[in-house]
Amino acid sequence: MTSDALEKVGFLGFDVFGTVVDWRSSVARQAEPFLKRHGIDVDPHRFADEWRALYQPAMEAVRAGKRPWVKLNILNRENLEAVLARHGADVRQLPETDLADLNRAWQRLDPWPDSVAGLTRLKRRFPIGPISNGSIAGMMNLARFGGLPWDVILGAEIARSYKPQPQTYLRSAEAVGLPPERVAMVAAHNADLVAARALGLRTIFVRRPREHGPGQTTDLEPASDWDVVAQSLTEVADALGCP
Amino acid sequence: MTSDALEKVGFLGFDVFGTVVDWRSSVARQAEPFLKRHGIDVDPHRFADEWRALYQPAMEAVRAGKRPWVKLNILNRENLEAVLARHGADVRQLPETDLADLNRAWQRLDPWPDSVAGLTRLKRRFPIGPISNGSIAGMMNLARFGGLPWDVILGAEIARSYKPQPQTYLRSAEAVGLPPERVAMVAAHNADLVAARALGLRTIFVRRPREHGPGQTTDLEPASDWDVVAQSLTEVADALGCP
Repeated sequence: MTSDALEKVGFLGFDVFGTVVDWRSSVARQAEPFLKRHGIDVDPHRFADEWRALYQPAMEAVRAGKRPWVKLNILNRENLEAVLARHGADVRQLPETDLADLNRAWQRLDPWPDSVAGLTRLKRRFPIGPISNGSIAGMMNLARFGGLPWDVILGAEIARSYKPQPQTYLRSAEAVGLPPERVAMVAAHNADLVAARALGLRTIFVRRPREHGPGQTTDLEPASDWDVVAQSLTEVADALGCP
Repeated sequence: MTSDALEKVGFLGFDVFGTVVDWRSSVARQAEPFLKRHGIDVDPHRFADEWRALYQPAMEAVRAGKRPWVKLNILNRENLEAVLARHGADVRQLPETDLADLNRAWQRLDPWPDSVAGLTRLKRRFPIGPISNGSIAGMMNLARFGGLPWDVILGAEIARSYKPQPQTYLRSAEAVGLPPERVAMVAAHNADLVAARALGLRTIFVRRPREHGPGQTTDLEPASDWDVVAQSLTEVADALGCP
């Protein structure tokens, strides 16, 4: 599925958590020894889901202006402590090094099997970079962990606003010197593409039906006529004519 | 020449124009056909020098608060018009596409012969990125042109301040999640390292005795006891134990 709308695109911006990397199984795998060591009785995948579930509400407080902009790793850390407390842990008794290390799990997430190959092909023709809610350091470390060949890191921190706030997309486009209609947003989440399209960006939907595990019910299908719909980043490369 | 001071370094930030790329001969080479085509009688290397000579004064107006922060490509464009006018060109008569293309010469600068090899080795052990006065788009396009394998692009645009203003270094360190003393600044210019060291960054001096051509008189030698002094980026890799 290709599109004339993409002809003048000069930059591909990527959602990362869920679109490029598999956060759920990676966080669960890293949480498991922590939970065991500290006697916290919760299934590691459920733990990952619960931790992730606090992500949007935490950003919402920033979006709504209830608190000043802070980097995502700080929100993740607060959310980690909240989930641990929910399962009976006394967070003040847990070693700081263990907590900090577990919070860095978000910088050690496995790419989906097609991600590195797809990005490598896309990069030959287009500049590529995250337009993610992750921090610059988080995105940089994640790229080094998984071998993601970004040309640049854009997104929330350079805009000091969280998607789907317009500024995150607009400031990212401006940073690469392009009008919004020359930037394509690549995401596995319809809401991300709704916000991007409303601002003029092109839209590429990648199906990630296991992002939330075997019982996933959201984002299984494109919710609109996105410019490209694909099953993988290698299929995006096919659609964009990147050999 | 290695140093204990570098033991805890977690990020290498690079000056780019002059340190990583050879702006003078690259700009001269690209200016030559433009100057000929429009009958402007000036030696292309002199033209490159004159254009570059307006770089610091233009940034100084921003640093001094006489004008709001603008990206370097805008300053470069203003300076280009000033130099052309000095040599008798009527800038309003020159085609916009030609002017815009010549201004983009700063995104098409050849790396020094050791740069890509040195950065590739350094990147295996350290995250690397520009802490340059160039814009994000300019640095991204320059990296794609020359094959510079940056992990991230930091510097003036994310800080909205130009080196040697402290904020440029400090905001860059903060963006990669490190205190200044865990960041090393790599530069061919003593003034850059003076500013970096004053803020606690580590300092790596690379000799680039032909940056300004055969008659260069500045920055031929380290002006202080920088943590590392090297002849090339491959020598920096040697000094930092990056095979």
